[in-house]
Amino acid sequence: MTEKHITRTLIVQIPSTPGNLGKLATAIGLAGGDIGEIETTQIGPTWTIRHITIHCDSEEQFDTVQDAIRQLPGFQLQAVSDDVLQAHEGGKIHMKSRIDVRSLGDLRRVYTPGVANVCRLIQKEPEKARIYTGISNTVAIVTDGTAILGLGDIGPVAGMPVMEGKAALFDQFVDISGVPILLDSQDPDEIVRTVKNIAPGFGAILLEDIGSPHCFEVEERLKAELDIPVMHDDQHGTAVVTLAAVISACKSSRVDLKDSVVGQIGLGAAGLAICRMFKAYGVNEVKGTDLSPEAKARLQQYGGTPVDSLEELMNTCDIIIATTGVPGLIKPEMVRKDQVILSLSNPNPEIDPEEAMKAGAAYAADGRSVNNVLGFPGIFRGALNARANRITHEMLTAAAEAIADSTKPGDLVPHPLDPRVHEKVIQAVEAVAVEK
Amino acid sequence: MTEKHITRTLIVQIPSTPGNLGKLATAIGLAGGDIGEIETTQIGPTWTIRHITIHCDSEEQFDTVQDAIRQLPGFQLQAVSDDVLQAHEGGKIHMKSRIDVRSLGDLRRVYTPGVANVCRLIQKEPEKARIYTGISNTVAIVTDGTAILGLGDIGPVAGMPVMEGKAALFDQFVDISGVPILLDSQDPDEIVRTVKNIAPGFGAILLEDIGSPHCFEVEERLKAELDIPVMHDDQHGTAVVTLAAVISACKSSRVDLKDSVVGQIGLGAAGLAICRMFKAYGVNEVKGTDLSPEAKARLQQYGGTPVDSLEELMNTCDIIIATTGVPGLIKPEMVRKDQVILSLSNPNPEIDPEEAMKAGAAYAADGRSVNNVLGFPGIFRGALNARANRITHEMLTAAAEAIADSTKPGDLVPHPLDPRVHEKVIQAVEAVAVEK
Repeated sequence: MTEKHITRTLIVQIPSTPGNLGKLATAIGLAGGDIGEIETTQIGPTWTIRHITIHCDSEEQFDTVQDAIRQLPGFQLQAVSDDVLQAHEGGKIHMKSRIDVRSLGDLRRVYTPGVANVCRLIQKEPEKARIYTGISNTVAIVTDGTAILGLGDIGPVAGMPVMEGKAALFDQFVDISGVPILLDSQDPDEIVRTVKNIAPGFGAILLEDIGSPHCFEVEERLKAELDIPVMHDDQHGTAVVTLAAVISACKSSRVDLKDSVVGQIGLGAAGLAICRMFKAYGVNEVKGTDLSPEAKARLQQYGGTPVDSLEELMNTCDIIIATTGVPGLIKPEMVRKDQVILSLSNPNPEIDPEEAMKAGAAYAADGRSVNNVLGFPGIFRGALNARANRITHEMLTAAAEAIADSTKPGDLVPHPLDPRVHEKVIQAVEAVAVEK
Repeated sequence: MTEKHITRTLIVQIPSTPGNLGKLATAIGLAGGDIGEIETTQIGPTWTIRHITIHCDSEEQFDTVQDAIRQLPGFQLQAVSDDVLQAHEGGKIHMKSRIDVRSLGDLRRVYTPGVANVCRLIQKEPEKARIYTGISNTVAIVTDGTAILGLGDIGPVAGMPVMEGKAALFDQFVDISGVPILLDSQDPDEIVRTVKNIAPGFGAILLEDIGSPHCFEVEERLKAELDIPVMHDDQHGTAVVTLAAVISACKSSRVDLKDSVVGQIGLGAAGLAICRMFKAYGVNEVKGTDLSPEAKARLQQYGGTPVDSLEELMNTCDIIIATTGVPGLIKPEMVRKDQVILSLSNPNPEIDPEEAMKAGAAYAADGRSVNNVLGFPGIFRGALNARANRITHEMLTAAAEAIADSTKPGDLVPHPLDPRVHEKVIQAVEAVAVEK
């Protein structure tokens, strides 16, 4: 028997005429495909959408199967999903009802006319909205699509899977209701205006994958003009987890972080926030390099020292943090012995951690393990719990220390799915916020 | 044994010092309250929030209990919930993850780095966002808080329970993910601008409880400038259910609706939409009266005939639809023999249906059963299923007919919790939309 090596799910729109599923199955079978599951996902007035899992021996055979389907008149091969795509089908989040409407009594309680009493109460005592609506537990996840992961300006819709991912993690880790907001503008004035206009429905604002340099202006202005927490995760969330990782790495290699020279390659939003975070934590010297003179000027403004070449940076720093989005930028021969190297660009790092270790690094990691999923859920939960109206550097430092404290000796960061980490971050952030 | 007549839930913030729950229980007991459930809902760094259900003999005793708690130093009685309020605690909706992240493999599939593949695919083939994000299944529920139920301009935050209610019903009835958007502006330009700026994240826009007359401008402009369905529910949702009710009432009283003269009392947002709906359905003559000359001018614009007095209207129309919010406006002596009279104002109708029947009406009903929950879920589901880029009058008429078809002989409308009604509305709207 032939081994079937490839499994894919085809999403096919089939005309609603008797016998068509048979035709489709025959076409797939004759082309050499082996049919697994068939799931009906939507029934339209003149068509049905079915998800059909197919096993094939080879990519070539799989192509033949696809061609065979495309030649069936009236059939539409809408998409082909692999594992990752399949996990995204239909989106990763859904606004669910927390109540169950089973009777007219229920309907009257949670909708008209009962709901009018709740509205009147909140009108009279606005602080009751905290109790009788979900606002104080809801965070807007706002992007303009200009800096999605390391992919750049691919637009907000193409960035939606990231926003949905954040919302899914908010729900799973800290029970926050996260709402993606995709902005049809890249103009800072327009972004600030729009977010302010929709702010009443949210307990906090997470800015996400907004490009540099306009992310700085957007965040600063929203922080100043809104009285709820606002945080750009690519800056501060990343900086928190990076600081945590570096604290752990220094502990393991018995390096005194505050006395080390930290070198940053890439001074985009994340890079500059990392500099601010390290300076706030008390690191003595932070050097940085970037192609943009403006970014280097900004580094200086945050207390860092601009350096002109990558080589100079690699030669003079104990800890290297790369956030450039340029895969393979750091060559193995640039690595100095016992350096700590974090190549954070996703999905492809500046240097493969294994290569860096082979070249003599004391510690190396890429952005997969130094994942800001360790930070943002607990930071926001803590801030919301404390009813804080801003997220301060003290709260962020507390979060970094909580993550570092949760890290097993020898590891760089804790396991991101360990609920205890998030619990620790929440407590640390909340305690600092309440203190203030 | 004394019967306990009153049950309420107290939300109390208790300082985290040992013995404090005991103190609280003692104070409640000594004041005569009987403690039922105690639930811990939040643990802060220096306090705990508990929900305590209390049974009392009388309102007076319950007041004594509340006073006793308020006198405990450091304790905070945050709120007192009855049945309705309790159903609203914490809000009625939550953005849930549709996936379960149990392993690093899961995390890599649905978050970084796997998610990057999905983003790239959508960037390359934007129509794939329909499959791999929830956008096409997500509806923004937008309000500026200017016309919440019959309560008027109470602000968007006080209106949130209504928006959450709509989202809960969207989820329960038609599996749509509804996202409340509370606007911090009542200026039509600003509303249009803001909604357009956040539109990329949504498959459709439900405008809700936006006041007249700016609701007309806002809806018309958004319809013209966006390529996704936009509908103001207070206009068209209400009009659909009203048309359905009138179709049923005419069936019961053997009146030919299309050949009848319909008279409308009250030309607010709902009243005017009802006129448009009736004209679209093919009703020959629609007359209307209102105190506002602007409203009458608008009626004429929509094909209706303005009439100056209530008396003239009552004297010349076969079917009367009142949406004025003025209880008792229609006197029994105004009713003509064999008229069909729907007094839709909630909670108190323009004329009691029984009185209208006594005065000679062929059929009379009030607005208690004419609930737009019968319309909006299926209308939006149908439009989204059909990938329609607007909601047309044909689609709305089809929805009204589907609701009327689902009504038992003699009834005005079907039971709103009957899933078959929503299914019928979906099919009818989708079929008309696809035809186009």
